[in-house]
Amino acid sequence: MSDSAKLTHLDAAGQPAMVDVGSKMPSRRVAVARSRVVLGPEIMALVKEGDLPTRKGPVFQTAILAGIMGAKRTSELIPLCHPLGLDNCRVTIEPDGPDAVLIECTATVTGKTGVEMEALTGASVAALTIYDMCKALSHDIVIQETRLLSKTGGKNDFQHEA
Amino acid sequence: MSDSAKLTHLDAAGQPAMVDVGSKMPSRRVAVARSRVVLGPEIMALVKEGDLPTRKGPVFQTAILAGIMGAKRTSELIPLCHPLGLDNCRVTIEPDGPDAVLIECTATVTGKTGVEMEALTGASVAALTIYDMCKALSHDIVIQETRLLSKTGGKNDFQHEA
Amino acid sequence: MSDSAKLTHLDAAGQPAMVDVGSKMPSRRVAVARSRVVLGPEIMALVKEGDLPTRKGPVFQTAILAGIMGAKRTSELIPLCHPLGLDNCRVTIEPDGPDAVLIECTATVTGKTGVEMEALTGASVAALTIYDMCKALSHDIVIQETRLLSKTGGKNDFQHEA
Amino acid sequence: MSDSAKLTHLDAAGQPAMVDVGSKMPSRRVAVARSRVVLGPEIMALVKEGDLPTRKGPVFQTAILAGIMGAKRTSELIPLCHPLGLDNCRVTIEPDGPDAVLIECTATVTGKTGVEMEALTGASVAALTIYDMCKALSHDIVIQETRLLSKTGGKNDFQHEA
Amino acid sequence: MSDSAKLTHLDAAGQPAMVDVGSKMPSRRVAVARSRVVLGPEIMALVKEGDLPTRKGPVFQTAILAGIMGAKRTSELIPLCHPLGLDNCRVTIEPDGPDAVLIECTATVTGKTGVEMEALTGASVAALTIYDMCKALSHDIVIQETRLLSKTGGKNDFQHEA
Amino acid sequence: MSDSAKLTHLDAAGQPAMVDVGSKMPSRRVAVARSRVVLGPEIMALVKEGDLPTRKGPVFQTAILAGIMGAKRTSELIPLCHPLGLDNCRVTIEPDGPDAVLIECTATVTGKTGVEMEALTGASVAALTIYDMCKALSHDIVIQETRLLSKTGGKNDFQHEA
Repeated sequence: MSDSAKLTHLDAAGQPAMVDVGSKMPSRRVAVARSRVVLGPEIMALVKEGDLPTRKGPVFQTAILAGIMGAKRTSELIPLCHPLGLDNCRVTIEPDGPDAVLIECTATVTGKTGVEMEALTGASVAALTIYDMCKALSHDIVIQETRLLSKTGGKNDFQHEA
Repeated sequence: MSDSAKLTHLDAAGQPAMVDVGSKMPSRRVAVARSRVVLGPEIMALVKEGDLPTRKGPVFQTAILAGIMGAKRTSELIPLCHPLGLDNCRVTIEPDGPDAVLIECTATVTGKTGVEMEALTGASVAALTIYDMCKALSHDIVIQETRLLSKTGGKNDFQHEA
Repeated sequence: MSDSAKLTHLDAAGQPAMVDVGSKMPSRRVAVARSRVVLGPEIMALVKEGDLPTRKGPVFQTAILAGIMGAKRTSELIPLCHPLGLDNCRVTIEPDGPDAVLIECTATVTGKTGVEMEALTGASVAALTIYDMCKALSHDIVIQETRLLSKTGGKNDFQHEA
Repeated sequence: MSDSAKLTHLDAAGQPAMVDVGSKMPSRRVAVARSRVVLGPEIMALVKEGDLPTRKGPVFQTAILAGIMGAKRTSELIPLCHPLGLDNCRVTIEPDGPDAVLIECTATVTGKTGVEMEALTGASVAALTIYDMCKALSHDIVIQETRLLSKTGGKNDFQHEA
Repeated sequence: MSDSAKLTHLDAAGQPAMVDVGSKMPSRRVAVARSRVVLGPEIMALVKEGDLPTRKGPVFQTAILAGIMGAKRTSELIPLCHPLGLDNCRVTIEPDGPDAVLIECTATVTGKTGVEMEALTGASVAALTIYDMCKALSHDIVIQETRLLSKTGGKNDFQHEA
Repeated sequence: MSDSAKLTHLDAAGQPAMVDVGSKMPSRRVAVARSRVVLGPEIMALVKEGDLPTRKGPVFQTAILAGIMGAKRTSELIPLCHPLGLDNCRVTIEPDGPDAVLIECTATVTGKTGVEMEALTGASVAALTIYDMCKALSHDIVIQETRLLSKTGGKNDFQHEA
């Protein structure tokens, strides 16, 4: 078994290549990704104070918008991703314990290829934006874990067992 | 103490704002960020087979290039980042134990503002690209512990205690 | 009645969100927007001299091209716009009285969502480009009015009563 | 007097051209531009309800961020603009009478060329974003009077007499 | 016969314009373009040494990735090109005699308009990237010939007689 | 002698890397590149008819603008190019014999790194744009001899012996 046979983004000569999706039928596809950002309790308190009572605060909203805009640009950032329209992209941010926030990005398309990378890119850019807005307070912020939670609509569905 | 006073990306009215760097003097600034991608032992074996003997394999190289190109576009992705040139951007990827790889991105600028976000964005886009190239093999890949390792050249240096 | 229920770009929690167009059927949609730029009579005379006899002059053509290219990038500029292909985009510029020009941008798509924003963005970028090319002559140029003239092909047609 | 001699963006042959700024010395330059968006009293009431008590509401914030991000991309949109870094970009949005909002965008650079176009582009993209977020409520929103208010730091200062 | 009638990118007034593809039916379209880069025998030897035994070397791979990413951005670069998704984009690079390399870019879409420009842009950006990576060794590198080799799926097929 | 030692865009491990320009002093740098587009005599006649009497025709102007805008985006297209501002970018297009046009692109910067790639990218994008605007008339258009003509201001000047 050659690596090229399994790593779909390599061609027979082992060179990087896109996957040809020309013969696939478009279907409704949804992917959900999550990113957890550990801010520490002090920053978390500040962010909550400004952001959470109304859930309309500027740190979260800036991150939500950055995540949506980042998801739309996935194919510019990830070299072998197909350019595709999005039916929808939604980013939510919730506190997760005393020192962290949980970002979820849901990307939806009616297309020939999945939107895992759009969901993961949206969550990552939202996480980086939270980092940027809080970094004057600490250099120990950590984007602890970014992963796929679920995908549906392709050949194989996937559901992460939490 | 108001949150706006401490969260530098909010102005006095609590609205999102850039930080004015007009009065700063340009200095040589370097930031190093890291991201860890847990691929699992099976994918790791495949990637190593193709990539590691020569360290010129296509998965790592694609990720290195994507990381460098991503770092150059940081100010397009992160809403309140300043646009700035880069003197240099370097991405390295090494295996880290039997199932993971470690990405390091070093960004360098002679400028008025730090390049933490460039380093973090470069590491993140490289990590997302590895994910993309391996995702046909597993949906359980996880991007872990994206964080700043060090920064020098600004008002305060920082060194992460590993 | 909550504002979120009426402002379609806010979700139930009042956070910014795209509108899910996944269940809509694609249809042929056309939107026309207009922008009026008041240049003042002196600049207008210069522009006309160079541009109007042939209608191929460089100020208008540069603005036409900038408008078309700007319309193609609408979803990058407007945070909650859907990325979409365009079947066509046309920009025309005509003198309007002794001191102004009228820009019209017509955007056409076969898609699930309207192209008002593409037409308005195309007209706006064309207007800004005229401004840029003439600004060495005056700082009193005004983009006086940018508005939608008509849209067809969606749930509700619209026609501005001139 | 030929038009090319006065329209700085045309060369001797009447072709579009950038202005060579190579021999200029960098200086601190600030430009302020304004755009007015007439929403009508009903939308204005809705927007105020959600946005104004705290001035952190999602419509204004989304527009502020879009304006800042748009200003950063001015040289991609306006064909003959120089690419340049920004020291700062600030967008504010205030109600202006019962049916309109006033957007102000202040762009600052230490550079060889002015930032009028950055300020005007930022104000325009913020205005278009407000349009986008309110357009489900009315097709009669109008973007009015986009203009330069002041510029300093270049060869000639300018101050609009309000 | 007016030029406007034949040059499809000019409208009746001789102004630049997109071609309206709204009434076309989507079909599977493939275009292949080729670019030949003359490096000279010395650089060619170096590149071959590092790149060719494994065909995974960094110069070729970097160029392949740049070509694919460039093809995806064709509609941003070429003013009157339609934005469109790509089903696939493949770039190959082979030595061609003792002093040159041959780049082929194959672009595929299911759409209303051809992908010649995507294939030509991909080949050109790959060629420019090879130039960039080798330019420290010589200023006499030449991108000798870029042309279309074939196109299928549109109104008229085309096959270059080699 | 290892290839990495000579190919400046590879690091010691043979991986792609930017060149660190941090220790260089900014200087005024100019690069001129050329591209020749063979249109064939029939297209050439059409283009001349519309474009050449005034040299303001739409094919040439569109290509000039696309070339300038393309040069500004060089660092987005060429993976290891440094992002940099441009003091100036000029594109000219002249007929060259009965069937071809000659494009020249001059890029100028005050910076730490040369602008050869900006000049070559500007010439290439202008050439591709001419191709795009004429391609409905022939599939046998060829972009020939894209090369550097001169560079000054860096460590070594270069002048092509025509």
